[in-house]
Amino acid sequence: MAKITFIGAGSVVFTRNLCSDILLTPSLQDCTISLMDIDPVRLERSRKLVQSLIDQRGLKAHVEATTDQREAVKGANYVITTFQQGGLDAYALDIDIPRKYGVEQCVGDTLGPGGVFRALRTIPVLLDLCDDMDDLAPDALLLNYVNPMAINCWAVADATGRPHVGLCHSVQGTSEMLARWIGVPYDEISFVSAGINHQSFFLEFRRGVQDLYPLIWEALEREEIIGEEPVRGELAKYFGYFVTESSGHASEYVPYYRKSARMINEELAPRFTNEADHWFDFGRTGGYLRHCLSRLHLADQDFNELISGVKAIPTERTHEYGSMIIEAMETRRPTRINGNVPNTGLITNLPEGCCVEVPCLVDDNGVQGVYVGALPTQLAALNRTNINVQELTVEASLMGSREAVHYAIMMDPLTAAVGTLPQIHSMVDEMFEAQAQWLPQFE
Amino acid sequence: MAKITFIGAGSVVFTRNLCSDILLTPSLQDCTISLMDIDPVRLERSRKLVQSLIDQRGLKAHVEATTDQREAVKGANYVITTFQQGGLDAYALDIDIPRKYGVEQCVGDTLGPGGVFRALRTIPVLLDLCDDMDDLAPDALLLNYVNPMAINCWAVADATGRPHVGLCHSVQGTSEMLARWIGVPYDEISFVSAGINHQSFFLEFRRGVQDLYPLIWEALEREEIIGEEPVRGELAKYFGYFVTESSGHASEYVPYYRKSARMINEELAPRFTNEADHWFDFGRTGGYLRHCLSRLHLADQDFNELISGVKAIPTERTHEYGSMIIEAMETRRPTRINGNVPNTGLITNLPEGCCVEVPCLVDDNGVQGVYVGALPTQLAALNRTNINVQELTVEASLMGSREAVHYAIMMDPLTAAVGTLPQIHSMVDEMFEAQAQWLPQFE
Amino acid sequence: MAKITFIGAGSVVFTRNLCSDILLTPSLQDCTISLMDIDPVRLERSRKLVQSLIDQRGLKAHVEATTDQREAVKGANYVITTFQQGGLDAYALDIDIPRKYGVEQCVGDTLGPGGVFRALRTIPVLLDLCDDMDDLAPDALLLNYVNPMAINCWAVADATGRPHVGLCHSVQGTSEMLARWIGVPYDEISFVSAGINHQSFFLEFRRGVQDLYPLIWEALEREEIIGEEPVRGELAKYFGYFVTESSGHASEYVPYYRKSARMINEELAPRFTNEADHWFDFGRTGGYLRHCLSRLHLADQDFNELISGVKAIPTERTHEYGSMIIEAMETRRPTRINGNVPNTGLITNLPEGCCVEVPCLVDDNGVQGVYVGALPTQLAALNRTNINVQELTVEASLMGSREAVHYAIMMDPLTAAVGTLPQIHSMVDEMFEAQAQWLPQFE
Amino acid sequence: MAKITFIGAGSVVFTRNLCSDILLTPSLQDCTISLMDIDPVRLERSRKLVQSLIDQRGLKAHVEATTDQREAVKGANYVITTFQQGGLDAYALDIDIPRKYGVEQCVGDTLGPGGVFRALRTIPVLLDLCDDMDDLAPDALLLNYVNPMAINCWAVADATGRPHVGLCHSVQGTSEMLARWIGVPYDEISFVSAGINHQSFFLEFRRGVQDLYPLIWEALEREEIIGEEPVRGELAKYFGYFVTESSGHASEYVPYYRKSARMINEELAPRFTNEADHWFDFGRTGGYLRHCLSRLHLADQDFNELISGVKAIPTERTHEYGSMIIEAMETRRPTRINGNVPNTGLITNLPEGCCVEVPCLVDDNGVQGVYVGALPTQLAALNRTNINVQELTVEASLMGSREAVHYAIMMDPLTAAVGTLPQIHSMVDEMFEAQAQWLPQFE
Repeated sequence: MAKITFIGAGSVVFTRNLCSDILLTPSLQDCTISLMDIDPVRLERSRKLVQSLIDQRGLKAHVEATTDQREAVKGANYVITTFQQGGLDAYALDIDIPRKYGVEQCVGDTLGPGGVFRALRTIPVLLDLCDDMDDLAPDALLLNYVNPMAINCWAVADATGRPHVGLCHSVQGTSEMLARWIGVPYDEISFVSAGINHQSFFLEFRRGVQDLYPLIWEALEREEIIGEEPVRGELAKYFGYFVTESSGHASEYVPYYRKSARMINEELAPRFTNEADHWFDFGRTGGYLRHCLSRLHLADQDFNELISGVKAIPTERTHEYGSMIIEAMETRRPTRINGNVPNTGLITNLPEGCCVEVPCLVDDNGVQGVYVGALPTQLAALNRTNINVQELTVEASLMGSREAVHYAIMMDPLTAAVGTLPQIHSMVDEMFEAQAQWLPQFE
Repeated sequence: MAKITFIGAGSVVFTRNLCSDILLTPSLQDCTISLMDIDPVRLERSRKLVQSLIDQRGLKAHVEATTDQREAVKGANYVITTFQQGGLDAYALDIDIPRKYGVEQCVGDTLGPGGVFRALRTIPVLLDLCDDMDDLAPDALLLNYVNPMAINCWAVADATGRPHVGLCHSVQGTSEMLARWIGVPYDEISFVSAGINHQSFFLEFRRGVQDLYPLIWEALEREEIIGEEPVRGELAKYFGYFVTESSGHASEYVPYYRKSARMINEELAPRFTNEADHWFDFGRTGGYLRHCLSRLHLADQDFNELISGVKAIPTERTHEYGSMIIEAMETRRPTRINGNVPNTGLITNLPEGCCVEVPCLVDDNGVQGVYVGALPTQLAALNRTNINVQELTVEASLMGSREAVHYAIMMDPLTAAVGTLPQIHSMVDEMFEAQAQWLPQFE
Repeated sequence: MAKITFIGAGSVVFTRNLCSDILLTPSLQDCTISLMDIDPVRLERSRKLVQSLIDQRGLKAHVEATTDQREAVKGANYVITTFQQGGLDAYALDIDIPRKYGVEQCVGDTLGPGGVFRALRTIPVLLDLCDDMDDLAPDALLLNYVNPMAINCWAVADATGRPHVGLCHSVQGTSEMLARWIGVPYDEISFVSAGINHQSFFLEFRRGVQDLYPLIWEALEREEIIGEEPVRGELAKYFGYFVTESSGHASEYVPYYRKSARMINEELAPRFTNEADHWFDFGRTGGYLRHCLSRLHLADQDFNELISGVKAIPTERTHEYGSMIIEAMETRRPTRINGNVPNTGLITNLPEGCCVEVPCLVDDNGVQGVYVGALPTQLAALNRTNINVQELTVEASLMGSREAVHYAIMMDPLTAAVGTLPQIHSMVDEMFEAQAQWLPQFE
Repeated sequence: MAKITFIGAGSVVFTRNLCSDILLTPSLQDCTISLMDIDPVRLERSRKLVQSLIDQRGLKAHVEATTDQREAVKGANYVITTFQQGGLDAYALDIDIPRKYGVEQCVGDTLGPGGVFRALRTIPVLLDLCDDMDDLAPDALLLNYVNPMAINCWAVADATGRPHVGLCHSVQGTSEMLARWIGVPYDEISFVSAGINHQSFFLEFRRGVQDLYPLIWEALEREEIIGEEPVRGELAKYFGYFVTESSGHASEYVPYYRKSARMINEELAPRFTNEADHWFDFGRTGGYLRHCLSRLHLADQDFNELISGVKAIPTERTHEYGSMIIEAMETRRPTRINGNVPNTGLITNLPEGCCVEVPCLVDDNGVQGVYVGALPTQLAALNRTNINVQELTVEASLMGSREAVHYAIMMDPLTAAVGTLPQIHSMVDEMFEAQAQWLPQFE
């Protein structure tokens, strides 16, 4: 009877999906779900939602809610993080200040000035949580869903050594999309994906021993396909492999697409010709922030519809790894995920100790990364330009070094492509000032 | 419809067990089993046995037999090796010549002069097989069951780079024995075992988060238990961890137990007080060779009883990993094994590139070793004394260097404990002369 | 009586300086200098020059000249390379084609499209030389002065494993400049410089245990100083350490300074306010090419003046490492240089196997890199963006992979800051077409 | 005007030789020598000796003496350790107790039970000294002469990270002996020696490019030569390379020579046929201890003869590295030594972090190990058997783990060749009891 704790449980979508998955897992249907959030209103909404799932499915599971992190963590077997430190207020600063300096971020939560400052806000909260876990749940596994994934996990690894794994669904989503594009049933697909979070690549995409990449190249010739993923399609064409993160996002991690607002609006956005794929606002600056703002009022509506039964509750597990990991550990039946773990020599041409996204064995011994070997050199090269930023951000946060924050953002491929050193310096200073309330480690 | 090839299929016990396992695996019941042996009589006996398993169980599987290795390998998906190059004639020389020089081996197939010369005989045959696989079954996985496991696999890795895994059942057998000793149901046990083949250690032995080692220490206090495994029990006491290979065998890899025939007969053998565990002849020199010789005539008897139905065919799969690996790769349902793979940084305090026995993820991407980290220093130290011999033997075989054979055996912990350098040198020279027919690489 | 061979001896400046140094070294004054060039006219000019040095100083040394590389290499103890494959014709293409695509290179011989194509032209010539050395001078040391230093040396290391060292004078020149700036006698300065060629950093700059960096910071506040090195000064300010390559050159390896012709002409060039430091044409595009063209006619003039005695021959050795290395190896008196050698774990946070510029012990055992450890993270990050390009260029050249050339230039920090992927692709294709005559490995 | 401090200055031989060297070095003739010992009588004797050197040579140097370590360390630039914790009383226990258990050590100060316990006594004193240096001489270099060299230096590296180097004269002495054997002037010899202290090997022994090993093999055929070094000669014959430590000592690190007292007295000792080489008592057990005891009364005699001028003071520097290092650091003129430093990837097939003896550059940046690469496999194998003991002893000392002391001695090649596990266990317990007064970290 595992205890599964959510930190940041007010996040309706994550909490609903992960709890639904857990409650659809036979071996977990008698678990205790402990929800924690600093916002009691959102917390209560999530609690009702989970209770409703339990009730509607008639399960023995138990849900509890608290604003006290230590109570939530106490005795937990699994701690899942879905919080967003600073919320949308801070997020808006991540987008708007850089924009003034010509740094045009679409999502801005992974790399770049936005990603770096999101990390600086998040890491102290994660480390505080790890301290509580050391005290109150020393054997628990930390399942981190909070971005920036690679930087956050790297910081946890370096500062605490705690068992943890970083989780994302981009590998699942992209592999499903590719299977759809080429018309091969997903359950016949084998793949190897490796790299860093949001910039992993499908090193192999096969049906048995048959290489399916030729079919992907064919698909990318079709107008509706390339119009769905113009950036990823082009990156694949020029770098030889398909990346796991969507086009708007992927365009931020490289210096080629977002050199100016004009370039984005006149050249990039129009290449998104598939209406269904709007990730997000077709790659325009601040697209995801606007998406979040626009969905704010929908959270209550979603909640009401699910509670009232207007919207049917899910009957199938999503492709999120969370419940799969817990199930494997509880049942001792091994599974495989693509998780974010420390690079203990797993990818030989990325720096030792960075956070890599690789295949992992999950069983009663936890999450264990497998050896991948060397990435194709051009992919390692791309990854390294991102890892440069990540490493300096981890160093900045753990050592409270403002200088290292400057270094990190000077090394950001997008920022460096548009700014001079004095401009970047001023931008970082302005961000520090605006976000001081969330950056205790720099005081 | 996988094609599974056995090289050295005349080995009744291995062929029967592995084929029975395969034919009990639902997803493999339509496979083709291709048996190959250089001895047509033993080959035909094995073929009849497998055909009988198919018939008695009423399956669609197909068995074929050939003395032509290339025919057997052609189009195979899996190639399993169970041959013994030189057979018992060579094996007798492995035991008898060293004995004249005071090197008293019990099994003599893993380390020591016996293990080294067994490797020298075996490696050329394995590499020739890998050449055929490169030609005729380039994607096939090699599942090696032939000893000396670590040396053979290391040589395959260095010389060919082919996908392969080395398989043994000592981890399964030992964990089952320990569970029995402490009275915990096996399906509640979690463990981590790591090291080198035949000298892996249980780093963890748990029920959930409960450490079960205290129960093992208690068990070892009981006379019937320690009398069952006097060497392993003592090694565990003095080195802190339980090793995976049985007492007679384990006593050969260290310099403490077999310094003279007198010591073995008067001190070691009498400590085996449990009649059921006679591995083999209670640790006496040549014990396993005598066991093999005594079972020679039983092979036909076994065969006749199984064919005629006097002895019932198995209805359950054994704990051998062979069929589990093939099932996982064919069904894409992950499993975990303890396999022998190259040390690509998986055990950080053993040499890079040596062959380690570690937890492995097996799925549609094959056998993938997981990261273990550092062994307790004293265990790494023990392993390194064995790895010294292994590394020099691989070098000797691949480079055809007689000198490196001398180096390997001078470094053998048991040999070094009993001989002077000139004595060891003479012993090696005598073995070279006696076994020249099986050592083409030194001509 | 060492034999010292120059390949590309037609280069007057290099040949004169290095030969003068050698002939000023007491232990080398009876050596044989063998000059080789494919241009017999320039070769003869160099021969006369060296003969004149010998005659004017009255030495026993012997000089010979040949257009036959094998003759020059035969029996050599040291082989020094100073050739320029493709000459200024090819060099002009390196500058002019990229310029059409907005890639504005100042020197263009180290990184960027110019550096990459220079490497592609050079590496086959170097490897051919190494073949001749394997044949005719197997123990000889290769002293490479040909740019792009890091890429060329990396290729030699990977393809041949021959003893070699890459040599530059930027460490000496920069340390002398810094000593001058801060008014400390050069022979009281201690420093540690490490990184990659042209992007090494002074990790320490001391007088005894006194840190001299504070004096450097003060100097950089002075207008005439910062006007001498505006780029390096700014890089030092923002990254914390002073780099070894001069401002015009240093501005090419990062994305901050050369985003457009306008930016260079209006913002960058005017910051060079010190007329004495015109490296070259104040950072303007093609500055060094113009410098080379303008000096073409001066070579003969220099030559004539030296031969005729109008210009006095040097009486002191320069700071070039060439003669120091040979002297140390011949006399067995150790010396230290900063040389370019394979990164065998010497700088722990740069990729294994890349070419690093580190302190080296030189003695009768040759050039031996010493362990440095980790660079400050931000410096390693900068280096890695350059190493990305270097690694892909080596791979491209050794494997004859056009695709890897594209990868290399897509990863160039400056190119990536100004171009889109299709633009870069077209640029590389155009360069391939224009330089086909010098790129045999891609046919 | 460097301050050079000696800890354990009562050691007449070391203090006299090293101080004489220093005072013969022009750049150091105005230094301050600070002598420290816990024994005021021996300290005063040493002070007088050094003062006499200064006076007889008429130098400006200054000598001072104190029993207060902090006073001696304060402001030092170099700290040289020559103490022996526990003195000959403890040493006698190191020899006599193991002997009761059949462990027959000749010198017993490097490996084996004697070496391990010497390390356990020494390390706390060294770490205490390092603490004082951190306080009072933070930039000073530690030059350690105290055995067991590798273990002591490894502990200092792991526990303190202080700049240090371990110094021995076995490389110099052996290379001089070999040059003498083969009749080549020493100043024409080039060599590469690498491995671990007391078990380094001459990987190359050359005159220019001429391999001199054939001459060594010839020399070893001569009776008077092999009778001088019977163990080293045989090890060279069977392992292919000549080792740096003398025969009596070398015989302790391997399991081949000292399996019983009878074997030593009847087989080993008689092979020493050269009276001049009595190292020590021809390899007999406790030979060096007896040597030390026999020389006790000679210290005063030596002292008196030197002071009174009966014995002339040295006029030439010895081959000890101490003064060479200080000279190179003070004058900024590079030199090369073979020093003991952490294995930061310098020898690739020995464990990372162990203490290796390799060529080092010494200059104004201190002592810097150079990259060596892989040892021949058989030499790495021998070294690893010793490193096993060293690593466990460091772990034992730093963590205060009695168990790790047991592990260390169980792994000792000589001990393991003669004892059973219970016997070794009892021996270690007895040593712990007898030496408790010097082992504060285990209380």
